[in-house]
Formats: sequence, structure tokens, C-alpha cells
Amino acid sequence: METREAIENRRSIRIFQPRKVHKDLIAKIIDSARWAPSSGNIQNWQFLIVEDKGRKLQISEAALGQTFIALSPVNIIVCVDNANMEMYYGKRGTDMYSYQNSAAAIQNMLLTAHSLGLGSCWVGAFDEDALKRILKIPDDIVPVAIISVGYPSEQPPTPSRRNLDVLIYSEEWGKT
Amino acid sequence: METREAIENRRSIRIFQPRKVHKDLIAKIIDSARWAPSSGNIQNWQFLIVEDKGRKLQISEAALGQTFIALSPVNIIVCVDNANMEMYYGKRGTDMYSYQNSAAAIQNMLLTAHSLGLGSCWVGAFDEDALKRILKIPDDIVPVAIISVGYPSEQPPTPSRRNLDVLIYSEEWGKT
Repeated sequence: METREAIENRRSIRIFQPRKVHKDLIAKIIDSARWAPSSGNIQNWQFLIVEDKGRKLQISEAALGQTFIALSPVNIIVCVDNANMEMYYGKRGTDMYSYQNSAAAIQNMLLTAHSLGLGSCWVGAFDEDALKRILKIPDDIVPVAIISVGYPSEQPPTPSRRNLDVLIYSEEWGKT
Repeated sequence: METREAIENRRSIRIFQPRKVHKDLIAKIIDSARWAPSSGNIQNWQFLIVEDKGRKLQISEAALGQTFIALSPVNIIVCVDNANMEMYYGKRGTDMYSYQNSAAAIQNMLLTAHSLGLGSCWVGAFDEDALKRILKIPDDIVPVAIISVGYPSEQPPTPSRRNLDVLIYSEEWGKT
């Protein structure tokens, strides 16, 4: 699929067919995450694949009851390792770069999923501590996103976008 | 360009031809940012295009002397508006979602630049306050990245990537 088509036609999908997603496709999605840029190429990301029904239910509860998570064939939990990040980049590293690196990786994943005919939804609203308990995630590691993946069973309308001309300033703030 | 090709072959480019980048191409790059997902579709991003030589020099000084910024034909400063974000999502919004939303938008921009035959470099190391002064950015707004763009004048080697098998855990942390 063309890059532009993937970028513009990707939608957040929350209703999936019960059909299982082959592990090779999951691997392709996570493989694409690896190619995102990261601060000094630190690549401080980790990916946890969850397909177990009971665990998905627990995760959906940790995600403030977003039930579609429990009903998704697979959820990929994206985590960042902040130990090295702290050492190399201090607070700016843990408080900004870690989120940016992993978000760039996630965007690659969403685009790749879409280009493979799969749907996905990026979830950020969850109880971090609860999620860490469920997945036995150690102290230095921060879960930053839950990505639900599966074959789409909905075609959501395109959410509105702000016009390009109000998004751009020239040379300084407020100047168009 | 195929999505996979754009994702895998994009490199960080820091040496550019002096050739100007047409404003329609810059518009295409920023247009692609609009299609990134954002928390509740809040789209709290803004893009500042800087081409003025003197201002680019000031920005490169605010970016800890990274001189390639001054030599890039164009720099796009990506900002987030944290006023609404704070209201809707509180601290998780300003401290996590804002960085994630804008990073997803930036990744679209890097991929689009590459697919248009342009090079780009994502810069996160800069003095936020200095940058705000230079660009007259108001209080509630946070500059989160400087993206240098131009026609590449280098072909950097592919930086190494961690192997896929060490990046993936299954069902819980540490289990492969």
C-alpha cells in the first residue's frame, strides 16, 4: 500500500472479527516499529503480545473498562525501558524522548497493520500500576500504550481534521 | 512509495543540498501530520515553518549548537497546545498524550518527506525556553521537536537495529 494511502485511510478500529491474527502478521507489525527513529538510536522499546482471554479481560479492566480490548484477537502492550534513558538523557529522556520514540514506533505499527488489511486501536487511558501487575512488568519499565489488533468488523467514518491553513505558522508564532 | 519501503528506508538526514524546498512539498508533509491519531481526536498540534537564515541560526544555537539546523533549507517546529489537553485529560494528557500525539504526527511527516524524495532529521535536544523566545511561542504551548527538511546530500548507512526476537514477550514480561 502507498504510504500516503496508509496515512490517510488508517482509522481507529474497535470492532474486530473473531478471526485469529497469524503470528507472522503480528511479527511484521512489530518489525516495522523497530525502524522508527529513537534518541541516539537507543531503541528502548519492548512489545508484549497478549492473546489469552483471561488476561485480555484483566487488561480491559485496567483500561477503565474499555471492553473492546477484551474482545480484540490480540493486544500489543508497548513499553519503554527508562533505565538507560535516564542515564544518557536524564529527565528530558524519561519525560519526553521515551514517549516520542515509542509513539513513532507505534505509528509505524498502525500504518503497517492497516497496510496488511488489519485494524488497530491505540489506547492510552489505563491504570499503569494495574497493567504492570497483570503483566509482571518490572519497576524501570513503563507501559505507554495498548494496541488492539484484529481484522476490522467496522468501517468508521473519517473523523474531522483541522484545516491545514490554521495549523501552519510562518517564521514565528501567530504569523501566517 | 510503498509503506514498508518508506518505513524501512527512511534515514535521519543532516546534510542537505542548498536547493530550496517548494512550499507545496512542505504543505504535503504537514498535511500528512494531520492524519495521525490523537487523544479523542484533539489534534492539539501546530507547525511553525522557519526558512529565514538568521532565525535558523538562532534555532541551531538553542539546539545546543547543532549547526546542520542552520544549514537546512527549512525547519518545521512542532508544538503542542496544552490548554485543552489539561482540561480534558489532566496530567496524563499534558505529560504523555501530548508527546505521543505529536510524535505520531511527526513520524507521518518523516515518512512523507522520504516518500517525496526529501530527507529529514528529528531533533529533540534543545533549550525549550530559548526556542520559545526566538519564535514568540506563548506560555501554554510547548515546542516538542525541530524537524529539519531538505534534499539529501548524504546517504547514511542503516543504523543497527535490535533483533525482533529480543523485542517481543508473550503474555507477560520476560516470557518468550
